[in-house]
Amino acid sequence: MVKIQLYTFQPETYSNYAISIIKKIVFMAFLAGTSLSNAQMQNPAAHVDPLIGTEGEGNTFPGSALPFSLVRLGPDCGDLTSNSGYLPEANISGFSHTHVSGTGGGPKYGNVRVMPIIGSIDLKDPSSKGADEMAKVGLYKVHLSKYHIDVQLTSSHSVGFHKYSFPASTDSKILLNAGSFLSTSWCNGCTEEQQLVGCEIEIVNDTLIEGYTRVRRGWNTGNAYTVYFSAQFDRPATSFGTWKKDSLMSGTRVQYDSGETAGAWFQFNTKNDTSVQLKVGISFLGRMKARENVTNEVPHWNLDKVASNALEKWNTYLEKINVETNHKDLKTMFYTALYHSLLQPSDRTGENPLWVSNKPYFDDFYAIWDTYRATHPLFMFLCPEKQVEIINALIDIYENEGYMPDARSGNHTGRTQGGSNCDVLIADAFVKGLNGINYEGALEAMLKNAESDPGDDHQMKGRGGLSDYNTLGYVSTQHERAGTRTVEYAYNDYCIAQVARGLGKHELAENYMLRSHNWKNLWKPVTDQGATGFIMPRKSNGDWDEEYRGRAWDQDSAKWKEAEFTVHSYGTWPDFFYEADSWEYSFCVPHDVDGLIAMCGGKNDFLARLDTFFANNYYNVGNEPSFLTPTLYNYAGRQDKTLEMVRHIISQNYNTTRAGIPGNDDSGSMSAWLAFHLMGFYPNAGQDIYLITAPHFDRVTLKMAQGSHLILETKNLSKENIYIQKILFNGKELNRSWFKHTEIQNGGKLEFQMGKNPNNKWESILPPKTHYDIHKQSKE
Amino acid sequence: MVKIQLYTFQPETYSNYAISIIKKIVFMAFLAGTSLSNAQMQNPAAHVDPLIGTEGEGNTFPGSALPFSLVRLGPDCGDLTSNSGYLPEANISGFSHTHVSGTGGGPKYGNVRVMPIIGSIDLKDPSSKGADEMAKVGLYKVHLSKYHIDVQLTSSHSVGFHKYSFPASTDSKILLNAGSFLSTSWCNGCTEEQQLVGCEIEIVNDTLIEGYTRVRRGWNTGNAYTVYFSAQFDRPATSFGTWKKDSLMSGTRVQYDSGETAGAWFQFNTKNDTSVQLKVGISFLGRMKARENVTNEVPHWNLDKVASNALEKWNTYLEKINVETNHKDLKTMFYTALYHSLLQPSDRTGENPLWVSNKPYFDDFYAIWDTYRATHPLFMFLCPEKQVEIINALIDIYENEGYMPDARSGNHTGRTQGGSNCDVLIADAFVKGLNGINYEGALEAMLKNAESDPGDDHQMKGRGGLSDYNTLGYVSTQHERAGTRTVEYAYNDYCIAQVARGLGKHELAENYMLRSHNWKNLWKPVTDQGATGFIMPRKSNGDWDEEYRGRAWDQDSAKWKEAEFTVHSYGTWPDFFYEADSWEYSFCVPHDVDGLIAMCGGKNDFLARLDTFFANNYYNVGNEPSFLTPTLYNYAGRQDKTLEMVRHIISQNYNTTRAGIPGNDDSGSMSAWLAFHLMGFYPNAGQDIYLITAPHFDRVTLKMAQGSHLILETKNLSKENIYIQKILFNGKELNRSWFKHTEIQNGGKLEFQMGKNPNNKWESILPPKTHYDIHKQSKE
Repeated sequence: MVKIQLYTFQPETYSNYAISIIKKIVFMAFLAGTSLSNAQMQNPAAHVDPLIGTEGEGNTFPGSALPFSLVRLGPDCGDLTSNSGYLPEANISGFSHTHVSGTGGGPKYGNVRVMPIIGSIDLKDPSSKGADEMAKVGLYKVHLSKYHIDVQLTSSHSVGFHKYSFPASTDSKILLNAGSFLSTSWCNGCTEEQQLVGCEIEIVNDTLIEGYTRVRRGWNTGNAYTVYFSAQFDRPATSFGTWKKDSLMSGTRVQYDSGETAGAWFQFNTKNDTSVQLKVGISFLGRMKARENVTNEVPHWNLDKVASNALEKWNTYLEKINVETNHKDLKTMFYTALYHSLLQPSDRTGENPLWVSNKPYFDDFYAIWDTYRATHPLFMFLCPEKQVEIINALIDIYENEGYMPDARSGNHTGRTQGGSNCDVLIADAFVKGLNGINYEGALEAMLKNAESDPGDDHQMKGRGGLSDYNTLGYVSTQHERAGTRTVEYAYNDYCIAQVARGLGKHELAENYMLRSHNWKNLWKPVTDQGATGFIMPRKSNGDWDEEYRGRAWDQDSAKWKEAEFTVHSYGTWPDFFYEADSWEYSFCVPHDVDGLIAMCGGKNDFLARLDTFFANNYYNVGNEPSFLTPTLYNYAGRQDKTLEMVRHIISQNYNTTRAGIPGNDDSGSMSAWLAFHLMGFYPNAGQDIYLITAPHFDRVTLKMAQGSHLILETKNLSKENIYIQKILFNGKELNRSWFKHTEIQNGGKLEFQMGKNPNNKWESILPPKTHYDIHKQSKE
Repeated sequence: MVKIQLYTFQPETYSNYAISIIKKIVFMAFLAGTSLSNAQMQNPAAHVDPLIGTEGEGNTFPGSALPFSLVRLGPDCGDLTSNSGYLPEANISGFSHTHVSGTGGGPKYGNVRVMPIIGSIDLKDPSSKGADEMAKVGLYKVHLSKYHIDVQLTSSHSVGFHKYSFPASTDSKILLNAGSFLSTSWCNGCTEEQQLVGCEIEIVNDTLIEGYTRVRRGWNTGNAYTVYFSAQFDRPATSFGTWKKDSLMSGTRVQYDSGETAGAWFQFNTKNDTSVQLKVGISFLGRMKARENVTNEVPHWNLDKVASNALEKWNTYLEKINVETNHKDLKTMFYTALYHSLLQPSDRTGENPLWVSNKPYFDDFYAIWDTYRATHPLFMFLCPEKQVEIINALIDIYENEGYMPDARSGNHTGRTQGGSNCDVLIADAFVKGLNGINYEGALEAMLKNAESDPGDDHQMKGRGGLSDYNTLGYVSTQHERAGTRTVEYAYNDYCIAQVARGLGKHELAENYMLRSHNWKNLWKPVTDQGATGFIMPRKSNGDWDEEYRGRAWDQDSAKWKEAEFTVHSYGTWPDFFYEADSWEYSFCVPHDVDGLIAMCGGKNDFLARLDTFFANNYYNVGNEPSFLTPTLYNYAGRQDKTLEMVRHIISQNYNTTRAGIPGNDDSGSMSAWLAFHLMGFYPNAGQDIYLITAPHFDRVTLKMAQGSHLILETKNLSKENIYIQKILFNGKELNRSWFKHTEIQNGGKLEFQMGKNPNNKWESILPPKTHYDIHKQSKE
């Protein structure tokens, strides 16, 4: 067997030696790959259940979508306050073309809503109960009980395809609401609530309706975005009309933009031919582009063909990873998790209304704060070429708007949750050797984050409170989210240091490496439950902020109330932490776990703290700041505890039911976390390291570079045998609980021998302190 | 005669006594007004020559426009680098619908360009020489020599009306360029250069072409704006086609948006009926709105009617002021100046694509830095109701975007030249008693400027370097434009103090009054030409910045070169001063002229400094920071010198030729300056004071509130008799060189007795130190 050299990725000095190694690895992988039957790779999309996560707090989108697609066509339900449009059991108001999946906060999108009805139009409530709902990849079906109409929806990248099977009637109608959006009543007029800016609609002829919807705000308090549409019907309407606000105007063809809702209807005689199909092209540029998108993507009226194309597209992504197991549910959970991870961001290349560029354009980063930890690292396996496009799009946004976004939706950057986490994406790509990115330009964009205070726009872009951070070494309590920001900026700085060092900018790298220790400046020696040292509020004069107020949940009033700030104080935008408390954030030092262990009082105290954290349910499975925490056991030599914890978390929180995702899926973040752990390893994003957490499958096969495969084979896996006894890496024992992307990027084989007893013999070969340090050592 | 009480405007405590005075004033004004014949008020627009200022550096727009209109239809000439589109003698490439007037920097607009031709289409250069050009209010005519086509253009608020009289030909064509803008080569790709984002065009039928143009950047480096159009022809085309980039596609109806230029042509047989008319509706919302704008505004094909409506509209503004004189040229200069002042901002109420609001919406503040000094104070006479709308629009922008703009164009705020000069507009309205404005909301917007650092966006909004200013008391040289900013922020703070005080917020007012002295923190005792004390660069540590570098014009290379910073160093964006040197800016303390006189060493030194300033041509007639300077003599008891200076400046720099405006007209700023001085008084914007500079006319009649008139009557005026001997105000001698708006807002009569000898007997009643202080005294 070839001995794998633990080389460090050096883009500019890729040696002949390294290339010869790669060739050998590829060959080896080829041999390993021969055991794969073609059958194993076929139609993994059949294992996806789009309805998982649609109940409870998952907020996943159940309708028809393609990976990273522009159109996500699905039902808008109930009071329209759901983030995905969908609400189980609630009435369906129609089927709109723009949605996000798994998000929280004020809803976004829900534009260009189509509703089939029978009889007279009730603009206030055209909704119907749904029944016999069926969702699979690229196809959503439902029966509208009120009208006895069968609905089938599928879609291409930018076109929604609708098929409505009416009962026999001379008064079948299809309504097209050009002023629709989610939601009208989310927060009583706060800036997270979407607001109609205007719309227009024109009945061009008896088979064509066109126009646009313009909406602003929503979760990211974004500027107005405009969604143009071209709705083409497969048969002529027998009569038609338009409406404005509450007034129906039969026979009227045009409603121009007056800032009010408007729409149109087509009437059909469905006595003989009961089904009406329509294709709705969507564009963020213009009406003719929307029309063109239909011509380009769906130049026919074959619903099955559109649906099967969608399925095929999904399979090109999903077949990158093949899992073998007898547990059907686990397979469903896994492929559904991949599916959810690939819904966003939205690839809007060629649909950017803000500037012209030869770079890709992506929207709906919602937010990178959620997705940098697991989702984007997963793209490194599922679609590294998309990850290249995404990062290039982010750099292009920087070049045209001044900052890369932490979040962006509706063509507008904002809101930033904490750090400037694009920095992590770039470092992750860099250390994993992703080509096709201008890293010099990327570093410039990262340095903009780190050096230019966004001032008043601190919720929208860049690093708020940066002047504090760059002078005091922490963000003081004169700024909101000071705790989250300090901790994350330190990590972001570490990411900058890595890229700078790799590009040969050593002085810059040293400087940012120093800054990456800044999290320690908020480390206060308070004690809770036996753990000493927590990230706590500090004033700009250097004193701890003893007067800082937190919030606590008041059971009686069922409201948050102002209270003393403690390590348990949970926060959000105006608070010290964003969406977590100090117990969670005080573990949030992914780039310097050794330093963290030391600050916690050494390995034993650190392990005790982890135990306390999980035993007391301080761990929040649905919260990104805690994503890495279960694997921190690996860093302290107790990989067995990671295995226990991860399996426990999955079994308690994930399943194949509609409520089978804990918390909001956050654009596939909970899903990506699950997908990694089911495969048996988890990334420390931005660093060239995966922590081994042991597969849930008998065999996992990942397609890697140049036709190679990475195989994770598990022996003796059972309900009891959850502990790794031995790992072979390409046939040789791997005496550690981690591996590097650069070790597996050209394939290889990991064999896990499982048993029922904990095994921690790898304690002596702990994960490297930081990738940066390895890199440094290799240079010196 | 009624004695005029010099009361101070107090919106909340308007006493019965004050009301009774107003009634008396109104009655008196009525009597004064009886001497006006109707004839005097008729068709003042006939005295406007839109071609004044179109040559040289005036950059005024010569085409058809209405006051504050959305459409400004005129020729685009030569290499398209002219700010107004127009270039004398250069070839005409077409007639586009969006323009600004008098501006500098990178051009903006020039969208939806129509060009009539004969024969085959040369997309690279369809231009023709122009001949027999004629421009009057609401009508522009030119003959295109190359094609022998006569062009007539007129417009309504949002519709351009074209009439093209072709020679007999079977190959007459009208080209409509949906991707046009100014200019393609202004600065080689810098962010001040406009850039096409995309466009679309559809030939709907043989008389209708619709689409949009989307362009970004230009002078204010703005985001993309979209101009939708609906072009309706009065006769069917015999054939048609569209183009994309360089490819002509005969018979093709649609070009969708692909980020490239596109257009369409209609061909006509003009053998019998030689003229083709078209109406082009423009909208910033959508295509149907553009179509609706045509239906609403021009539901006919009568060019004369459109033109006469335009004339009529102009007269409703221009007839607010009637001047009587035997000097025809002076009358032309005056009404043309009013005309130019009223071209901008653009009233886009009902055309805001960013949010819905019941407030007015205005765009093309270009910039308020230019217009706050004279243009907006002129609106207090010409259209106070518009000034109310404008200020309400500015507050609405604050409420929806976070800051009032200093500049705004293409629906995007930016760039700020110096201070947050909306503050001056609001203070000006407040002290002059303008009703209909929510001054509490306005104060909130002003305080946002004064207290929230815009951070990285400092060229776009708010006050850049504010953290310096608010901690050090000046903007240090770590920020650009530190000198301009410090001086202007001090004035802006004074404006805030006034409004705060008036609203009863005394502590706030005191605080801002203190800040208004901050200009003194940059007053350095350097001496130049006998004058001691200048605004000079200072470092953040408190030391004068001796290393600060300026720029000097190098004759040999004909370029700016880095040089020692002196009181003569002229700057622009990255420099210490914006568009002026320290000689100019060291006079720029409009709110504390007494303080300035003291800092300059007392009255005599101050007068000597003024003399030096003018004698050495340090005064720059085309530069806004020097606008007030000639009238500073009034403050030092030498009103006779103001008279000399103003008359000298006008005679040397203004005339009725095409080059008759000095420097860029800056959205009518030079014009407004002229208009005031021709009438005989000049505002110190933001304060309730006008400095008397003596009329150039025999009689000026201004329509004031409630049907009253303010009359300025001049006796013995001649070329020699330029000095005021005596002023009667409502028959009583006025022993001062200034008056207040609150004294004349309900009319009155000022009689000027002129003579050839200087008269300075008003030295003892100098203008009040500041309005604020009067106000304060009246309260105490």
